[in-house]
Amino acid sequence: MRDAAVHVIVTMPDGEGTQVARLLAAALPGARVDDARCATAAPEADYLVTGHRDAKVFEAQHALKAIFALGAGVGHLLTLPNLPPRVPLIRLEDAGMAAQMARYVLAAALRFAQRLDVYARQQRERQWRQLDPRSPATIKAGVLGMGVIGTQIAQALAAQGFRVRGHARTRKAVAGIECCAGGGELDAFLTGLDLLVAIVPLTPATTGMLDRRALALCADGAHVINIGRGALVVDDDLLALLNEGKLSGATLDVFRDEPLPADHPYWTCPGVAVTP
Amino acid sequence: MRDAAVHVIVTMPDGEGTQVARLLAAALPGARVDDARCATAAPEADYLVTGHRDAKVFEAQHALKAIFALGAGVGHLLTLPNLPPRVPLIRLEDAGMAAQMARYVLAAALRFAQRLDVYARQQRERQWRQLDPRSPATIKAGVLGMGVIGTQIAQALAAQGFRVRGHARTRKAVAGIECCAGGGELDAFLTGLDLLVAIVPLTPATTGMLDRRALALCADGAHVINIGRGALVVDDDLLALLNEGKLSGATLDVFRDEPLPADHPYWTCPGVAVTP
Repeated sequence: MRDAAVHVIVTMPDGEGTQVARLLAAALPGARVDDARCATAAPEADYLVTGHRDAKVFEAQHALKAIFALGAGVGHLLTLPNLPPRVPLIRLEDAGMAAQMARYVLAAALRFAQRLDVYARQQRERQWRQLDPRSPATIKAGVLGMGVIGTQIAQALAAQGFRVRGHARTRKAVAGIECCAGGGELDAFLTGLDLLVAIVPLTPATTGMLDRRALALCADGAHVINIGRGALVVDDDLLALLNEGKLSGATLDVFRDEPLPADHPYWTCPGVAVTP
Repeated sequence: MRDAAVHVIVTMPDGEGTQVARLLAAALPGARVDDARCATAAPEADYLVTGHRDAKVFEAQHALKAIFALGAGVGHLLTLPNLPPRVPLIRLEDAGMAAQMARYVLAAALRFAQRLDVYARQQRERQWRQLDPRSPATIKAGVLGMGVIGTQIAQALAAQGFRVRGHARTRKAVAGIECCAGGGELDAFLTGLDLLVAIVPLTPATTGMLDRRALALCADGAHVINIGRGALVVDDDLLALLNEGKLSGATLDVFRDEPLPADHPYWTCPGVAVTP
């Protein structure tokens, strides 16, 4: 017997499924939303949200009431031999999720450029000291993970005048954005960044990739934004670099353990913004 | 005898001179920058920065080494009968000041939309509670003072998807922005605003215009951004509405007394961001 909750399953390229599932779950209170890659995914979901040509998902799902295709077109799905024939296929031009994450990053990036993070710290000490805002043209921003969402974030930063570079496993061509690719170019990508946005999927290769050595390649006073997965970052290394003043701050939307434990140093580390 | 400091004088329409002078002074450390309207303005400035057809400024200035014209073109200046004939006239396409103030407003507006202000307060109490970000399309933003800078701010907010209206003394026509005009439409402009940006010049009519009655017309939980002049706002009224929870926060870049006195309640009022 099935319970009353609506079950939604998500399949996305480049490991973005978990992020999309999180966003959908927040937008659909009461629904159960799973990444198709998770072992615990609902076996007989009501709705599928798909961002790529994933035939395997249809082997497990036999009770779909509708399929929602994210991104560019549905042609790639129509050629799947096991696409269920009588299930409505609905194209979502822009579900607004990438735009939402881009706004989150933009809010943090503009706060950094305008020195509002420093002013907030000065305010706690009632300190009146003017600082020059930094022009985005002088700020090197890097997006680690140039998938669908990462690319939109990079473009949103570039539109505000930031100097943007991106990194992905394979080289992407995005107008106005210098794209690095593969492990061999990772250090060059990180070196000198003032603003690092991590949105790379979590794999054995990316777990803990933002450790002391990698983060220390950024410019002095850099700010780290993690909207990918908590385990991309070695927390103790990030905290140490913040406390040493090598990094000026971090805006963290994801954590190894969620909710963030009440005694975790991120809650009180100066310069760290925790968003659940 | 003259001292070594460079003297710059600024003349702008709609009382924006003081704002532009502040920004220039920040960008030119060591220079003296005055609004031409101030009685204490340097009588023999080296450089003039002008944003409108102001003949009077040339009656007082006889030692100009160059004239910088802000905004659209120099034709309006060339027809001034007393324009000094042998002083270079340099057109500044975009001095970057309006863009800078637009980024300040955008940083605060996106922070409000993404609930990062609420999360910052939750963080102090180590409180893990997810809130839905608000789509800018659901946020009514109003720019009080649609001069050159105000208009650019309104356009920057509209580009991010905010629902923007503007108010000026005379009606402006700006694509995508509903423009109100004059005292008769002020209440209608303010009513229901989620985000109020004040950048109106300070005149006897605007001093204290943002009092309890006016601010209370905004929506519950509204956020006030003041980048105009401190005296536009009745501080006690703003503080009372913040403490009562009618308003959720304020981002204040200008104050009646600067530096802000160390015992001023703005320093510690929850939800208030003080930027010097």
